[in-house]
Amino acid sequence: MDLRPVFYVIGILLSILAASMILPMLADLYFGYDDWKVFFVCIVITGFFGGSMILSNAGQAFNMKLRQAFLLTTLSWLFLAVFAALPFTLSDMGMGFTDAFFEAMSGITTTGSTVIIGLDDAPAGILLWRAILQWLGGIGIIVMALSVLPFLKVGGMQLFRTESSENEKAVPRAAQMASSIGLIYLGLTVSCALCYIWAGLQPFDAIAHAMTTIATGGFSTFDASFAHYNAAWKEIVAIIFMLLGSLPFVLYLKAVRGNLKPLLADSQVRWFLSIVVGAIVTLVSYLTLNQDMAFGESLRRASFNVVSLITGTGYSNGDYNQWGGFAVSLLFFLMVVGGCAGSTTCGIKIFRFQVLYSIVSMQIKKLLHPHGVFIPHYNGKPIPQDVPVSVMSFFFMYALCFSLLAVALSYVGLDFLEAMSGAATAISNVGPALGSIGPASTFAHLPDSAKWILSAGMMLGRLELFTVLVLLYPGFWKR
Amino acid sequence: MDLRPVFYVIGILLSILAASMILPMLADLYFGYDDWKVFFVCIVITGFFGGSMILSNAGQAFNMKLRQAFLLTTLSWLFLAVFAALPFTLSDMGMGFTDAFFEAMSGITTTGSTVIIGLDDAPAGILLWRAILQWLGGIGIIVMALSVLPFLKVGGMQLFRTESSENEKAVPRAAQMASSIGLIYLGLTVSCALCYIWAGLQPFDAIAHAMTTIATGGFSTFDASFAHYNAAWKEIVAIIFMLLGSLPFVLYLKAVRGNLKPLLADSQVRWFLSIVVGAIVTLVSYLTLNQDMAFGESLRRASFNVVSLITGTGYSNGDYNQWGGFAVSLLFFLMVVGGCAGSTTCGIKIFRFQVLYSIVSMQIKKLLHPHGVFIPHYNGKPIPQDVPVSVMSFFFMYALCFSLLAVALSYVGLDFLEAMSGAATAISNVGPALGSIGPASTFAHLPDSAKWILSAGMMLGRLELFTVLVLLYPGFWKR
Repeated sequence: MDLRPVFYVIGILLSILAASMILPMLADLYFGYDDWKVFFVCIVITGFFGGSMILSNAGQAFNMKLRQAFLLTTLSWLFLAVFAALPFTLSDMGMGFTDAFFEAMSGITTTGSTVIIGLDDAPAGILLWRAILQWLGGIGIIVMALSVLPFLKVGGMQLFRTESSENEKAVPRAAQMASSIGLIYLGLTVSCALCYIWAGLQPFDAIAHAMTTIATGGFSTFDASFAHYNAAWKEIVAIIFMLLGSLPFVLYLKAVRGNLKPLLADSQVRWFLSIVVGAIVTLVSYLTLNQDMAFGESLRRASFNVVSLITGTGYSNGDYNQWGGFAVSLLFFLMVVGGCAGSTTCGIKIFRFQVLYSIVSMQIKKLLHPHGVFIPHYNGKPIPQDVPVSVMSFFFMYALCFSLLAVALSYVGLDFLEAMSGAATAISNVGPALGSIGPASTFAHLPDSAKWILSAGMMLGRLELFTVLVLLYPGFWKR
Repeated sequence: MDLRPVFYVIGILLSILAASMILPMLADLYFGYDDWKVFFVCIVITGFFGGSMILSNAGQAFNMKLRQAFLLTTLSWLFLAVFAALPFTLSDMGMGFTDAFFEAMSGITTTGSTVIIGLDDAPAGILLWRAILQWLGGIGIIVMALSVLPFLKVGGMQLFRTESSENEKAVPRAAQMASSIGLIYLGLTVSCALCYIWAGLQPFDAIAHAMTTIATGGFSTFDASFAHYNAAWKEIVAIIFMLLGSLPFVLYLKAVRGNLKPLLADSQVRWFLSIVVGAIVTLVSYLTLNQDMAFGESLRRASFNVVSLITGTGYSNGDYNQWGGFAVSLLFFLMVVGGCAGSTTCGIKIFRFQVLYSIVSMQIKKLLHPHGVFIPHYNGKPIPQDVPVSVMSFFFMYALCFSLLAVALSYVGLDFLEAMSGAATAISNVGPALGSIGPASTFAHLPDSAKWILSAGMMLGRLELFTVLVLLYPGFWKR
């Protein structure tokens, strides 16, 4: 296999990463933290590696084959996590490489699990770097979901192939679409930051939170996350923009061009919002009836946490571990649901549940009418022939990888609740889990082995499993 | 829909149930318990209903249509549970109808969860009745898996259609096969009882345990289950016959006729035994290395509990809740695996994992070679076209039903561990769960609502989900 195009693209990505380290360096300079030197060193190192990889692999026609594309996708996330970890490990925070890698992987996969205790006093540069990692991870995954994954046909993503992606104009069109969507992403981030400022956040916190809200990432600049403010309007802004980050960005593109209908009529959007509303209503009724919480309080708590967990953001405004067994179980299952395909969310994703629902309905009809012909539909169109097995294989592998992660976590010492919720939160890129690794705590006290297992789970989940698993198949490496 | 053939068959089944109540009546008479009167009353009631249903629906050609077959399967299990509950509710045990129904459903679905505290002093009739229910449930499910389910094409069971099941000789051949397999089942039960007696059990306990061992049911005549004896040889007998109960009985038929090859070469059998050995080795290494258990002790504990849980029997010889988080997590996931199709076990079953593995391997190959043609295989033969989606739909519905059961259980007050493991143990017909409903305890202290939810889960799991779910589809009831 010719690795040059792979390293060439990784070189470009590392250069972007190096360039984006300038912002936290400036922040540290502005706020007077010595850590700006750390970022300077990291820029030099990352830029040197990125530049070298570009130069040593440039000068050839860019013609990516399938296996190269798979390798590139996995390796790029891995390289980015390693170099993104440098500032954490070199800074005054005193983080070992395991912790730094965990934090970086949690950042670029938009997970939001943290091992840092003492965010309130952390240097501005580190806080901004965490936010930037999630922001880059968010736009990265949208572009990947639009361009690479449908091409790789991973987990039914071929449903989102556009007509144009089949012909020769694919690459320029994809580039054009990516830059348009990048602008929308930037616009939403700026809007979110302005709303946060309006709601009373300091500009720095507003920008950092806006970046991690729209990326459904969940890193906060406070140990207590949104419980630091404990203010309804700030939470409402977060809820709105977490939801906006969970819808298919390609529909915003159409909406901006004046065609609102695809956004409003899209079945994935409707399913997603229905599930969110249904879960909130259920949880509110439970909290008011069984836990004696006031209605207003329960509405606020339920809305914020349901949206935060189903979108995989992972902000918290209180410890849902204290709300009784039902809240814990419901939130656990919501974690793996996820948002829409082509958004910044992770998890199984709504369109897969729609495809699964459609297939199971068809199965039941077929049981009753064995000679009938039934064709499953998605969003009003027949589902292409290879999609059902692709989606169902994804679901099975999700369950299997979840089980193996949970068993591995319990082997290194986590209890049942931590192992189960830790596996779920990693593979679904949510953030906080349950029990001692819940929203009122961090992942800092876990053994190193657990942090590596969780990091692997985050990457596996973010790259839709098969993109990574295909590399473990011996045939991948054979000529 | 013409319900007469449905009620006719249910009438026959109820008459068999009534006839089988004679045994516990005789046992009570022999051991001098007053409860024999209860069984006498129950025989009259059940026999009267069964006889009436036969008489009022007899006299027509037996021609079962598809929808009638679905309805019959679900209704027969429901009717049997209701009438099987009579002795429990009428006896001196003082059980309410909820408890009695739960115990009866747990019996005929070969689950083995119990709400009875004080088995050691219970009348012989009740103890024998529990064993008989599981024994009948065990043979019932084997016959169903051979004759009804492949015909209904539920969850990929069409893989086990025999050539003969397609033609006119299907019914007499099925009846002949059922009686041959019934003889094998009886033979294994008698062998098991003799081995138990040899290992030192009292004849009554040996017979009762033999019935629930071969049925992989798990009801014991002691509150402490096998921990009552705490004797290695008795446990070895149990392990051997639990495993024998988990293999495809149709292969025994061939083995008895002199052809041992199908049994030894069957890929389902090999997978199953490999998983069992792998799990035991893993658990032994954990218990010796991390929990400082002696090797002999850990081998005995691990073998017994792994086999008991993967086969869905549910005997226990100690509280695995005390063995640390890894044991709990591993045993939790083993619960849903199950044994081979065509055995008395429940759970997802080995052949479905084989089909899923085959499909996922094919998917990965297809990702790398989009234009290649790959055909998934099972047991050396290509998998028929409709099987993959059927099996994968089953897997998805299993996960969905499990989730809904767990959420429902947590709503009525169970904690996370109880709700998760309770849902798993019910839908997989295992028996004991984890936490306060673990092997050292019973289900007696749960609220009534939880018992009904668990009963529904047991029936759903035992009838391979779709057999029941199809009745909830509105189109089922339309002309």
